[in-house]
Amino acid sequence: MSDPSPLKRLYAKILASRTLPPDQSYTASLFQRGRPRIAQKLGEEAVEAVIALMRDDVPGLVGESADLLYHLLVAWAEAGITPEQVWAELARREGTSGLAEKAARPHF
Amino acid sequence: MSDPSPLKRLYAKILASRTLPPDQSYTASLFQRGRPRIAQKLGEEAVEAVIALMRDDVPGLVGESADLLYHLLVAWAEAGITPEQVWAELARREGTSGLAEKAARPHF
Amino acid sequence: MSDPSPLKRLYAKILASRTLPPDQSYTASLFQRGRPRIAQKLGEEAVEAVIALMRDDVPGLVGESADLLYHLLVAWAEAGITPEQVWAELARREGTSGLAEKAARPHF
Amino acid sequence: MSDPSPLKRLYAKILASRTLPPDQSYTASLFQRGRPRIAQKLGEEAVEAVIALMRDDVPGLVGESADLLYHLLVAWAEAGITPEQVWAELARREGTSGLAEKAARPHF
Repeated sequence: MSDPSPLKRLYAKILASRTLPPDQSYTASLFQRGRPRIAQKLGEEAVEAVIALMRDDVPGLVGESADLLYHLLVAWAEAGITPEQVWAELARREGTSGLAEKAARPHF
Repeated sequence: MSDPSPLKRLYAKILASRTLPPDQSYTASLFQRGRPRIAQKLGEEAVEAVIALMRDDVPGLVGESADLLYHLLVAWAEAGITPEQVWAELARREGTSGLAEKAARPHF
Repeated sequence: MSDPSPLKRLYAKILASRTLPPDQSYTASLFQRGRPRIAQKLGEEAVEAVIALMRDDVPGLVGESADLLYHLLVAWAEAGITPEQVWAELARREGTSGLAEKAARPHF
Repeated sequence: MSDPSPLKRLYAKILASRTLPPDQSYTASLFQRGRPRIAQKLGEEAVEAVIALMRDDVPGLVGESADLLYHLLVAWAEAGITPEQVWAELARREGTSGLAEKAARPHF
């Protein structure tokens, strides 16, 4: 089986890079700069994805999505969240669906 | 095999919901409202994730991450992007790493 | 003199509304919901302004700009910042200019 | 009269800088890079303001507010909007108020 879950693998790589010397790893340097910097990058990459979508810039949206996912996973690592916790939340929401549930938040 | 890739499954569900009556599916209603609405939701969920991270609100960040991923996948479907394209971009970046590559964009 | 500074007047109105019953004033209800809600609205209105700009939706950008300015002023009131402090910062930056100063942050 | 409307003055300065050589003016370089770049900066500065507010970083919020206002005014110039149009929209909303009007959008 080649690659069941790319994000799970990326998350493992982020955890492994966290303790590298910050001058040798962008990931390690992000953690060193701290949570506000991680939050800033997360927000900025989302803004760039929004703009790529509005421009119908498909290669741009692919690239910004990769950036956004990477920084989201760094945010999870920073907060002590595992991908499995988020997959469980997604599964929980898939169990419900429709517009009636929308008001109750779990909504797709 | 239980669940190799939760996002791949969610993406398939989004594609399947796209053609449902909009009054019966939040996903279908999003596509009906169009690209600016999808972009808006993507940006808003990222803002909420940023705030949950800054508050150290772990359950909140799990929930906002699920919302953010869902709306990101809707944006991919809207733009005709498959998850595989984004996984390929992530893999390409993993091939490079370190701060030297940061300037050249692929950076983790 | 009719209206020297619309934002200064709006800021005074926000301060005056802050202590109204929250069910009678949107401004009061925002302060009651607290800082994370104010931050969320600030971010959301900026996202909407970004999208209006990308769509070249001029009336939309006028409306979203009004929303963004209002929520920015609420954020200032929440943080104990006066408009004069921000005007002073703007004046300080105008004193410098050019791309050389850009690196040093004050940049227009 | 010292300075009735700092934003009006800043807007005039932005218009005047627009035609400078881009290598001598940050403002001119922004216009040269085009609308997506202006939208990106607008979104990024809002994210930074959100984070400064959440951190209770008062000097940071003053600085990010100055950055946000500057880039908002650049967006107005890019879209052909004058400050007076936004002031008129703010005045129109002040004419209405309360939570009842909130649903109808003009809401402070």
